[in-house]
Amino acid sequence: MFRTHTCGELNLQYAGQTVTLAGWVQRIRKMGGMTFVDLRDRYGITQLVFSDDANAELCEKANALGREYVVQATGLVSERTSKNANLSTGDIEILVNDFTILNSAKTPPFTIEDNTDGGDDLRMRYRYLDLRRNTVKKNLELRHQMAFETRKYLNDNGFLEIETPVLIGSTPEGARDFVVPSRMNPGQFYALPQSPQTFKQLLMVSGFDRYFQIVKCFRDEDLRADRQPEFTQIDCEMSFVEQEDVIQMFEGLSKHLFKSIKGIELGDLPRITWHDAMKYYGSDKPDTRFEMKFVEIDDIVKGYGFSVFDNAAYVGGICAKGAATYTRKQLDALTEFVKRPQIGAKGMVYARVEADGNVKSSVDKFYSQEVLQQVKAAFNAEPGDLILILSGDNANKTRKQLCELRLEMGSQLGLRPTDKYSCLWVVDFPLLEWDDETERFYAMHHPFTAPKPEDIPLLDTDPGKVRANAYDMVINGVEVGGGSIRIHDSALQQKMFAILGFTPERAQEQFGFLMNAFTYGAPPHGGLAYGLDRYVSLFAELDSIRDCIAFPKNNSGRDVMIDAPSFLEDSQLDELFLKTVAPK
Amino acid sequence: MFRTHTCGELNLQYAGQTVTLAGWVQRIRKMGGMTFVDLRDRYGITQLVFSDDANAELCEKANALGREYVVQATGLVSERTSKNANLSTGDIEILVNDFTILNSAKTPPFTIEDNTDGGDDLRMRYRYLDLRRNTVKKNLELRHQMAFETRKYLNDNGFLEIETPVLIGSTPEGARDFVVPSRMNPGQFYALPQSPQTFKQLLMVSGFDRYFQIVKCFRDEDLRADRQPEFTQIDCEMSFVEQEDVIQMFEGLSKHLFKSIKGIELGDLPRITWHDAMKYYGSDKPDTRFEMKFVEIDDIVKGYGFSVFDNAAYVGGICAKGAATYTRKQLDALTEFVKRPQIGAKGMVYARVEADGNVKSSVDKFYSQEVLQQVKAAFNAEPGDLILILSGDNANKTRKQLCELRLEMGSQLGLRPTDKYSCLWVVDFPLLEWDDETERFYAMHHPFTAPKPEDIPLLDTDPGKVRANAYDMVINGVEVGGGSIRIHDSALQQKMFAILGFTPERAQEQFGFLMNAFTYGAPPHGGLAYGLDRYVSLFAELDSIRDCIAFPKNNSGRDVMIDAPSFLEDSQLDELFLKTVAPK
Repeated sequence: MFRTHTCGELNLQYAGQTVTLAGWVQRIRKMGGMTFVDLRDRYGITQLVFSDDANAELCEKANALGREYVVQATGLVSERTSKNANLSTGDIEILVNDFTILNSAKTPPFTIEDNTDGGDDLRMRYRYLDLRRNTVKKNLELRHQMAFETRKYLNDNGFLEIETPVLIGSTPEGARDFVVPSRMNPGQFYALPQSPQTFKQLLMVSGFDRYFQIVKCFRDEDLRADRQPEFTQIDCEMSFVEQEDVIQMFEGLSKHLFKSIKGIELGDLPRITWHDAMKYYGSDKPDTRFEMKFVEIDDIVKGYGFSVFDNAAYVGGICAKGAATYTRKQLDALTEFVKRPQIGAKGMVYARVEADGNVKSSVDKFYSQEVLQQVKAAFNAEPGDLILILSGDNANKTRKQLCELRLEMGSQLGLRPTDKYSCLWVVDFPLLEWDDETERFYAMHHPFTAPKPEDIPLLDTDPGKVRANAYDMVINGVEVGGGSIRIHDSALQQKMFAILGFTPERAQEQFGFLMNAFTYGAPPHGGLAYGLDRYVSLFAELDSIRDCIAFPKNNSGRDVMIDAPSFLEDSQLDELFLKTVAPK
Repeated sequence: MFRTHTCGELNLQYAGQTVTLAGWVQRIRKMGGMTFVDLRDRYGITQLVFSDDANAELCEKANALGREYVVQATGLVSERTSKNANLSTGDIEILVNDFTILNSAKTPPFTIEDNTDGGDDLRMRYRYLDLRRNTVKKNLELRHQMAFETRKYLNDNGFLEIETPVLIGSTPEGARDFVVPSRMNPGQFYALPQSPQTFKQLLMVSGFDRYFQIVKCFRDEDLRADRQPEFTQIDCEMSFVEQEDVIQMFEGLSKHLFKSIKGIELGDLPRITWHDAMKYYGSDKPDTRFEMKFVEIDDIVKGYGFSVFDNAAYVGGICAKGAATYTRKQLDALTEFVKRPQIGAKGMVYARVEADGNVKSSVDKFYSQEVLQQVKAAFNAEPGDLILILSGDNANKTRKQLCELRLEMGSQLGLRPTDKYSCLWVVDFPLLEWDDETERFYAMHHPFTAPKPEDIPLLDTDPGKVRANAYDMVINGVEVGGGSIRIHDSALQQKMFAILGFTPERAQEQFGFLMNAFTYGAPPHGGLAYGLDRYVSLFAELDSIRDCIAFPKNNSGRDVMIDAPSFLEDSQLDELFLKTVAPK
C-alpha cells in the first residue's frame, strides 16, 4: 500500500503521528521559506508543508511539482497555526520529511476545481479529468450509495436480483431498437433490450415471485437534451399482488432511500388520479413542491362579449401569491413566454388584486369589478396576488400551456428549490390513448397493462374510458418510476391486442412466446421500473442526468472521449456478412 | 396480496390458524374420499386437503385441477397424521374451505420435477418452465446471494460500484467484438465491451481508488461447450496498491463468500508460482483438491536402452495411491485416454508397487528392479500404489498431457468431489508468451500488465523470462478470477507496445486515448476480475455455467426460447444504412 491514511481522515487526534499519504497535487503556494502543497485524493485534501530551513533539498523538489502530479509523502501530523474550517482536515498539516513523485502530469486542459474554467465539450473530451472534480465525483458516490441501498432494501424484502439477457430479439413495436449483427447466424440480428419487460414477466411465470434488477437498457431515439442511448433502470416485478401491494412495497423503497441517504423522513405519499393531475396541474407528473393549482372559470367569465373567452373550450388560470408587484415588462415577458412556439398559447390575461381588494385586469373593458371579484373568489386570491389566465379551444392543450406557465411562475417565485422534495403517486391512468393521426388506440403504458377489473365491461363500449391499474411515482415534477398490474389472462390479453389493432397473426408473431408462456400457468403479477439516472439526478439536485453518469454520450450519441462509434475494418464487416450503404 | 403465507413457511406452530396460500399445483392424489394437492411456490410445497365428506363440491373442483394450475386456497392449518420429514412443511396440511383457480395451465411439455423427463433442447425452449424446477431455481437464488454478498463486502471496504458504458468503441486487438451499427452516425459502429478494462483504468486516473462493477461483458467467439456470448464479471480495480494489497483484499472477498454462503471457514490461501504450477501440475489452474504431484524421473530412467525415454525431453509421472489393483483392461483404457487426439500422448508406461514392495512395470525388460526401486522412491510410492509415466520431446506439451491423466485419475479415484473446495493463488506469471507461428510475443494477460520491477532489465535482454505482477485465483482447477498490477508509466507502456510488435502509430491509434490519459497523472493501480457465472457454478457444484444463467444461449449463440437472433425488416436495415450479404 502506498499510503497509511487517506487525504480526508486526519485531524488533531493524529497529531504527532508519522503518516504516509498519496494523491494528486491540487495547488502549491510558496510563502517565504515555506512551500505548501494541497494533496488531494477521493476522500479530501490535506496540506503538506515543506520548509527551506528544515530540508532545503526536499523543499526545492516540492517547488518543482506541477498541478496534478501524483505524489507520495511521508511526514509528521502537526497542528496548524492558521486553521481552515472549510476542510475536515483543516486543523492539521503534514511536515513532510520524505516524498516521491509517483507520476508527473501535463497541465490539464481545464482547472480541477468546483468552478472550473473548462467548457462542456472540453470536459467531455477529458471526462477522466472532469471526474476528478469534487462536484462530479460526489454524484457517482451518490449513485453507488443509492444503488446499494436499493439492493439492500429489496434483498431484505425477499427480492432476487436476476440478470436477463442483453442480446435479445428485436420487436418492431415501440421505440427503435439498437441491433447487433450475428456472425454465427448470417443476416440475423440480436437487439439490445429497451427494458427487461418480457423477461421479468416470464420470471413471474417461472415462480420467482419477487424479482428485481438494476440494469442497462437501450433506446435508439433521436436524443433530446436529457436523454442517453443507454440508461439504467431499477426494474422490479412481483407475483400474487394487487396494485396496493406494489405501491406499498415501493413507497417503502422511497422512504428507505430518502431516510438512509438524505436523512429525510418521508411520510406516506399522497396519491392523485391521472384525471385530477391533468385538471389541477395540466400534467401527469405535477411538480407539487408548490400549490398554485388550476382554477377553471369558464362559468364566471363567459357571456360578457370577450370573444376570446366566449369561444374557448377552456378558461382557467393560476394564482401567484404576492406577485401583484409584477411590472408590465415582467407580464409582457410572461405573455411572450406562453406564446413561444414550444408552448403555443395565443395570449395571456392577467389580473392583479390590489391592496384595497379591487381587481385590476388586462380585460377590464369587458368585465365589471363585480365579475372580477367573482374571479378573485374562485382563486381564493388576496390583496397582492396575481392571477394569470389562459384559454383555448382544446381543454387539454390549454392545460398543458397553463402547466408551463405554472412551472415558470414557480421558478420565478423561488417555489421550486432543488433541496426540497415533494413525492406522490399518480394513479388511475387511462388504459388507452387515442391517436387522431393513425386513428387507433395505443397502450398508454404498454400492451400488457391490466385494466381496472370494474372497467373491463367498458372495453367493449367505450375503450377510451377504461382506467388502468397503472401508477407513476413523481418527485418534483419528474416521473422517476412507473408500472402497472399486468394482464395474466390469455383471453383478456388477446382482447387487448385486438383493441390495439393487432391481427391475431401479428400478435402471435410479436408476442406469441409470451402469450404461449401464459398458457402454462401465469400468476397474477405486476411491477414497476425506476429510471436510476433521473432518480440520482434528483438526489444530486441536478437538472441534467449527464453528470450522474460516469461516461455519458453527447446529443449525437457519441462518446467524444473514446471517439465512438467509429468505422470498422472491411474484414470485420465481411465476417458479419454486412455492407454499409452511403446515406443519400 | 393473494396470500397470507408462502408455501414454505408453515409448521405446527401455525396449527389452528386460517391461512391463504397461492401457488402452482405440483401433484394431485385421490385416496378414498380425500384429495391431496401439493401446492408449490418459490419457497416450498404445502399439502392441501379436500374431503368429499366435508365439502363435496370443493372436492370435485379440486379433482378437476391439472398440473401447474395456479391456485389460491384458504383453509385451516392442521397437524398431519402421516408426516413427511423431507418437507419443511411436512408436519402440517391445510384443510381447504375455499379456493380459486387463478389461472389454468396446459400440460407442460416435461415434468416439473428435480429429475425431469425433458431433454436439454426442450427445456431450453421452455426455459420459463425449466426455471420452475427446484434444481434450477436454487442456482439463481445462489447467484443473487453471491452477487449481493460480493457487493456488501466491497461496499464495506470502500469500493464504489460505477457503471461503465456498454456502447463503446471497437478494438481489433484480442477477441472479436460484437458491434452495434449507429443510425445517427451512418456507417459507424459501437462495440460491446469484452471487459471494462480501459474504463476502469480511466477511473483510477480520475481518482476513484476503489472501483468495482458486476457487469455484463461480450465476446463474439465460436462457442465451446461452456462459453456464452454474454457473461458476467465482478470487475475490480484499486489505486495506490501493490500486488500484495490486491491479493489480500480479494482473498478477503473469497473468505467472506465461503463463510456467508457455504458456511466454510477458508484459511489463508496457498500460493504457487506459475512455474511450479506447470512443473507439478502441468497447468496454470491446478486442481489441488488432491495431491498426486508430477515427479520428473529423467535422471533415473535414461540410459538403459529404452529409446522412448532416452530420446525424450521430459519423462515424468504421477503416483495414484492404492490404484495397483487396476486391471490390464483399465490400464489399456487409460492408455487409450492419453492417446486420444485431444490429448495426443504417444503412449503410457505404468508400474505397480506390489504387496512385497517389488515394482512390476510395463517396461520391465529395460529396467532392473534396482532402477525401478529408485523410481518408486522418487514417487514416494508404497505397496498398492500405481505409477503412471508419460514422456515426450516437448516438456510443456508432455506436462499438459500428464495434467489430463492426473485429472482423469483424480476423477476415477473419487478425489474430486464437488462439495470439497481447494482455493489457491497462482502468481508470477510470465509477462509474455512467444508464438511460433507469428514469431512475436503476445501479452499473457493484456498489454497493460506490469512486469515485476526486478525483472524490468530483462525486457531488453530476455523478454520471455520477465515475470508479471499478475495473479489468478483458482478453485478446484477452475480459474475463477485473475488480474494484475498495471503499468502506470507512459514510457514503460510504450516499451511494452514495442515488444508486442506495435508500431508507435498503431499503439497510438488503438490505445492513444488511454496513454494520453496516463500523461495527466496516473496513480499506481491494479485489480482483477472474477467470472461470476463460473464462480456461481462452483458454489452450485455444477459442471456447466449454463444452469447458473436465467436465460442462456445455445452453442450457436441462439436463444431458442425467444428465437433470437432473427432477420430484420428491410426498413430497419435501411435506417441503419446497411445491407446484408449472402454468405458464400
